[in-house]
Amino acid sequence: MDEFQFIQSVTPKFYRQPNVMKGIGDDAAIIRNQHEDTILTVDTMVDMIHFSLKTTKPYHVGYRALAANISDIAAMGGKPTSFLVSIVIPDDWQDQQLNEIYQGMKDLAKNFQMDLIGGDTVSGKQLTLTITVIGSVPQGRARYRSQAKQGDIVFVTGTLGDSACGLHILLHGNENEHDNYEYFIKRHQMPMPRVDFVQACQGITRMALNDISDGIANEANEIALASNQLIELDYNKIPCQSDLYHFSEADRSKWILSGGEDFELIGTIPANEWDILRKVAKETNTKISQIGVVKNNPEKNGSVWIYQHDRYAKLNKSGYTHLSR
Amino acid sequence: MDEFQFIQSVTPKFYRQPNVMKGIGDDAAIIRNQHEDTILTVDTMVDMIHFSLKTTKPYHVGYRALAANISDIAAMGGKPTSFLVSIVIPDDWQDQQLNEIYQGMKDLAKNFQMDLIGGDTVSGKQLTLTITVIGSVPQGRARYRSQAKQGDIVFVTGTLGDSACGLHILLHGNENEHDNYEYFIKRHQMPMPRVDFVQACQGITRMALNDISDGIANEANEIALASNQLIELDYNKIPCQSDLYHFSEADRSKWILSGGEDFELIGTIPANEWDILRKVAKETNTKISQIGVVKNNPEKNGSVWIYQHDRYAKLNKSGYTHLSR
Repeated sequence: MDEFQFIQSVTPKFYRQPNVMKGIGDDAAIIRNQHEDTILTVDTMVDMIHFSLKTTKPYHVGYRALAANISDIAAMGGKPTSFLVSIVIPDDWQDQQLNEIYQGMKDLAKNFQMDLIGGDTVSGKQLTLTITVIGSVPQGRARYRSQAKQGDIVFVTGTLGDSACGLHILLHGNENEHDNYEYFIKRHQMPMPRVDFVQACQGITRMALNDISDGIANEANEIALASNQLIELDYNKIPCQSDLYHFSEADRSKWILSGGEDFELIGTIPANEWDILRKVAKETNTKISQIGVVKNNPEKNGSVWIYQHDRYAKLNKSGYTHLSR
Repeated sequence: MDEFQFIQSVTPKFYRQPNVMKGIGDDAAIIRNQHEDTILTVDTMVDMIHFSLKTTKPYHVGYRALAANISDIAAMGGKPTSFLVSIVIPDDWQDQQLNEIYQGMKDLAKNFQMDLIGGDTVSGKQLTLTITVIGSVPQGRARYRSQAKQGDIVFVTGTLGDSACGLHILLHGNENEHDNYEYFIKRHQMPMPRVDFVQACQGITRMALNDISDGIANEANEIALASNQLIELDYNKIPCQSDLYHFSEADRSKWILSGGEDFELIGTIPANEWDILRKVAKETNTKISQIGVVKNNPEKNGSVWIYQHDRYAKLNKSGYTHLSR
């Protein structure tokens, strides 16, 4: 299959979104968002750096790369609508593998009614997948990291550490023989961004939001820093699957605090809207957990503190804790 | 410089475009185009495939990569407004070289008042630069390849073959000792997309437009195919620099028809608007030349024919000609 045939094979036959004025087939794509703001994000995944065919099939390479970008759109409070794919293809990759990468993206895109509207296909030494995702959000309703305020409740969706545990099982086998290993592997290979939950949250007046791609320690620090607030977390309230207790405490804590790639959300909302959020969570079948509070303490603003092992310690971005002084 | 410091160093201090609601620093960027359509294009350039440090300094790598994308926006009739940059950085690239790549993009972006609003920075074996450019065009006023009609005049901007000649000089030296070699090298390293001309063309009622990135043979065929028309070109009317005659006829013809990367425009307009276009060209200091006509001939629609060496021949996408039957 030459480049032209390859592009033909991945070009959609129709577009799902009414805002696509022009998809693939001209110098560029055109979309129209009249009453909504347009959200844009790009991520690159490189073979042997961000994934390995040892743990990730081509299908999952495509699926996860798109999921990571969709998750960024969700974390802005938006709805993903379309995407562009740029792929660097080494000589030794087969058509079949490439088709599987695109199939992984296609299946996830279909789930969200998203359209592939452009891209680029080039040769190179290392398979590299760069996805630009476009989303929309009602004007002025984007959810920024900087919107946390004193008194807010800090929450997360789902359970944390699942993806890191799944990767561990893929690399080291099912050494603990727990029953739930397929769950963890699926959470690693096919994470589902929290788009539906975010869409249902539009009634919440104010919400700081971040997706958990690099671990909650990193994401909580980003919110604390951008909002210039002190965030206090309670480690024991951070939700995880009970099967995570089959592993060492060190592994578990590492996966929960800095495992990342669960693509769950961490957010803060005004305390008086907690009941509304719980209702939204129930309606969208989303598990949510209160894991901390936002405080104002000028000396410690822009930082995250965590209660773990019966004491408060400063939680840095990488998940390490430092005792307070 | 670690990744964080690198991102800090390339993050703009301010945004020029009023449509940037959120630039770098959250999960994604946000732009607002209420009365305009949004144009999106992505291109990837890979070291040793699309450029070589032998002929292209890091500064020009960045400049050219962005120019190629801006040219796609111009070819849609649009104005570039912002861009996202994803870069794969090998270990052996120095901070200084990376800064030069970004400086090349920054200088060209400033020329068009464009903002860098996002990106990704990752490690890998081969320097790979993927740029997503966002532009805007008044609603419904995009210029498609499919808009050519019988009777239209076919025109090009500027002169063709310059960039290919510049690359030849860079690779083989100034063997013909002509005076103008710096001009050709500059046309290769720092092409200037025709944004101003396109913006000034908004009064033209209908225009099929394509930028010349892969050579006029390819671009003319794309218009002919998308519009389902027959395009007839006159080789002798395709403008080139007189210094191109210092080279062999074979080289000259190859560079003009399939050299590409001049990032000039080929377009078609209704014949009765030719005088308006000439006025626009004069006002924007743009050389334009009539090089052919659009005909309707059901048997030959979707193809390009060229008058060269006293005969008409079919011009295929790669620039080869086939005698007519």
